[in-house]
Amino acid sequence: MESIKVNVMQKLLKANDAVADEIRNNLKNKGIFFVNLMSSPGSGKTTLIEETVKKLGKKIKVIEGDIQTTLDAERLQKLGVQAYQINTGPFGGDCHLEAAWIKTAIGELGTEDMDLLFVENIGNLVCPAEFDVGAHLNVLLISVTEGEDKPLKYPLAFQVSQLCLITKTDLLPLKHFSLEKLRQNIQQVNPACAIIEVSAHGGVGLDRWLEILKNKPGL
Amino acid sequence: MESIKVNVMQKLLKANDAVADEIRNNLKNKGIFFVNLMSSPGSGKTTLIEETVKKLGKKIKVIEGDIQTTLDAERLQKLGVQAYQINTGPFGGDCHLEAAWIKTAIGELGTEDMDLLFVENIGNLVCPAEFDVGAHLNVLLISVTEGEDKPLKYPLAFQVSQLCLITKTDLLPLKHFSLEKLRQNIQQVNPACAIIEVSAHGGVGLDRWLEILKNKPGL
Repeated sequence: MESIKVNVMQKLLKANDAVADEIRNNLKNKGIFFVNLMSSPGSGKTTLIEETVKKLGKKIKVIEGDIQTTLDAERLQKLGVQAYQINTGPFGGDCHLEAAWIKTAIGELGTEDMDLLFVENIGNLVCPAEFDVGAHLNVLLISVTEGEDKPLKYPLAFQVSQLCLITKTDLLPLKHFSLEKLRQNIQQVNPACAIIEVSAHGGVGLDRWLEILKNKPGL
Repeated sequence: MESIKVNVMQKLLKANDAVADEIRNNLKNKGIFFVNLMSSPGSGKTTLIEETVKKLGKKIKVIEGDIQTTLDAERLQKLGVQAYQINTGPFGGDCHLEAAWIKTAIGELGTEDMDLLFVENIGNLVCPAEFDVGAHLNVLLISVTEGEDKPLKYPLAFQVSQLCLITKTDLLPLKHFSLEKLRQNIQQVNPACAIIEVSAHGGVGLDRWLEILKNKPGL
């Protein structure tokens, strides 16, 4: 039974990768920079997108992944952003987004009037990291309240990301938390990962983030 | 392909449920109360176990689930607690614990000198809720920094739990957070769920939690 499960998973992942490459190339040809945001629940993905939209204007579209509800898409639509909600379903729901769903969502959103596409992945530090969604930049958000040990415990999410945003720095100084230790642990599992400390509400660190989005690395 | 995946999952879940029932009955016959702790990464599961061990003494054993590292088991062993670490693997790792692994872990730990067994599940608000591990009490931890909307977005985890602990209340009052809204959202998805607000570091709310453990509801 276990080997059937592994075989099915390997076939699904291979099919997923092919679609992801197709998405990546298509968007690159159109000059659209595609950023995939991953994190635990409540690390600040939607707030980051909101602040980014306020600063960079309206040529941004967003694909929202959630088990249930359209709460996040509604938050973004209030800012005049085109947001497409993927709900992964009734029974617990799939714990990640797959490239085929992103392809469908892009078809629905359309690629006109867009130079930046965000995917806000399902809030989950494990499964989304296993599925390439076709982004040019994978970004991992981790808030200072989650603890310094998370890169060691959930290494794949940090390893597939080129950029790590340490969020909610306005909650520092916190008891029992070391920013230095978190930075060390991120670099231990992924020495190539860039790190920016941000507080979306306070505006700290956002300039560097916006600069990266303007530069479109890899496009 | 999708239907093969669904079929395999249904067979796996059915097999899992049978083992879970066996664990639940065996432990009940021995008078051992089994509590399954679930939450996002960094919501305070290990800290809660540490504080519980300090208050209730040593007849507690713990099964730790993590993708990688034995950090949490080491924290508990320092307190003189027998802790068994399950690491779910190298490639991203399984995102949940299954009953068969718990059965093996209980075999390794032994059931002598134990009246309370904790499983600290993988930090993940999605997948662990889909797999019954055989506990008498499922407990969901959510910290005040994660946002009030999480019960609506991840309902299954709240629906399979009989008790919800709202943690890190020492970080209240926080900007952008309503304890009342979180309570409403929990009750919306699971009206039968008991709710306790705790701050493990401050000791707030721990008395009621310890009382529940002593009463062993369902045993």
